[in-house]
Amino acid sequence: MFDLCLIGIGTGNPDHLTRQGARAIRDADLILIPRKGDHKADLAELRERIIDDATDGNPPPLAYFDIPPRRSDSGYRQGVDDWHDAIARAWEAAFATATPAPRTVALLIWGDPSLYDSSLRIMTRLDPQPRVRVIAGITALQALTAAHAIPINEIGEPFTVTTGRRLRDEGWPQDTETLAIMLDGDCSFRTLTGKNFYIWWGAYLGMEQELLISGRLDQVTQQIETARARARADHGWIMDIYLLKKHHADSADG
Amino acid sequence: MFDLCLIGIGTGNPDHLTRQGARAIRDADLILIPRKGDHKADLAELRERIIDDATDGNPPPLAYFDIPPRRSDSGYRQGVDDWHDAIARAWEAAFATATPAPRTVALLIWGDPSLYDSSLRIMTRLDPQPRVRVIAGITALQALTAAHAIPINEIGEPFTVTTGRRLRDEGWPQDTETLAIMLDGDCSFRTLTGKNFYIWWGAYLGMEQELLISGRLDQVTQQIETARARARADHGWIMDIYLLKKHHADSADG
Repeated sequence: MFDLCLIGIGTGNPDHLTRQGARAIRDADLILIPRKGDHKADLAELRERIIDDATDGNPPPLAYFDIPPRRSDSGYRQGVDDWHDAIARAWEAAFATATPAPRTVALLIWGDPSLYDSSLRIMTRLDPQPRVRVIAGITALQALTAAHAIPINEIGEPFTVTTGRRLRDEGWPQDTETLAIMLDGDCSFRTLTGKNFYIWWGAYLGMEQELLISGRLDQVTQQIETARARARADHGWIMDIYLLKKHHADSADG
Repeated sequence: MFDLCLIGIGTGNPDHLTRQGARAIRDADLILIPRKGDHKADLAELRERIIDDATDGNPPPLAYFDIPPRRSDSGYRQGVDDWHDAIARAWEAAFATATPAPRTVALLIWGDPSLYDSSLRIMTRLDPQPRVRVIAGITALQALTAAHAIPINEIGEPFTVTTGRRLRDEGWPQDTETLAIMLDGDCSFRTLTGKNFYIWWGAYLGMEQELLISGRLDQVTQQIETARARARADHGWIMDIYLLKKHHADSADG
């Protein structure tokens, strides 16, 4: 029996780390680091820098593991299932390399471990089952609203968080005027037409290369698409997120 | 022209503070502290403790202000509007006490400044207008899911964040199976009937007196109501939040 600590580390700014997160890094006997598959080299280095900062340059042992490739020949749900199993096996192999056996293993999670992250589900596939502990981190959604200095919600009103795929396939959901979109590799905001939508878009949030664009959607769609394509080509990767509002009275006009 | 920095400080655990938040506290020439109206004495002390911790006991000047009472005789929307104006005037009066005039004023915000918090709206009523900067903090929603060690969303699925009032008045919104409820002083989950709902409830998240209850809603409703009433009587205040899921296959049964 060991403890597995999932530590939210924010979106790429090392200063997003909380004191609780820094302490959990210091308290770990072993930290698992993904080697391949986490194809964003800038982010891999950042992970090690965060560990160094939190431990004053005296990191605990690090165990590297390869993220297995994701098979796409067995349907979305089955593919995810198989992939999570394969990652659990990779974690177990990494634990096994450590002697003596670690009592507290930590994993550093971009953003927050509860929000569109698989680690909590992968964890349930481990044998033996660890005790799990979660350290909350700054999410991309908060980094976005902080960068634009805007509230997420209108006063007393709800908002919905969803994926690019959902927006594309199902359109604007009912019962909400505010929509945050995550996991969108395809500029799904292009599927919204008319002059009623406003967008606050951000990429590389909290990092030096941060990009922010906001305005009435029909007026900035092209600008965002162009900026996104150029940045992706320049850096070799991109992570972005955006907030959409319908009928937003006091929005800037872009 | 001065800078106004809204610093998210998390939900009551001083270790929720990020390194970015700690730095912003150190960089402030003046920190505004609400005196009355912020009726939770435990929280008021905590705010000063966070400032002390971040500045190694050498805090910048603090300016206390009274949160004006909220009038309830002019309708909800107008009442909020008047109240925000009155708070803006109280901030201006607090700035005016500082000599020399501060260049960087900070406010410490529970949770995150973007999520069901009024400071960004109050700020727009200031004269002169400051430059605003927002530092993201751990939200109550993240503190809740971290404490229960659960994901917010099902794989690739959306979720909606709303208020107790909305759930009570409008029922379960369409297009979502996961609902996070904030600002609920009235146990609005009681309005959901049947055996299809699961709840993960938490109060005083991140604090010593933290309370957590989860299970099938019909089986734990009474337990939560009782725990909530007792804790509120004991402490004189309570802040709670909960996550609800419909048809949740692998939930614990309470």
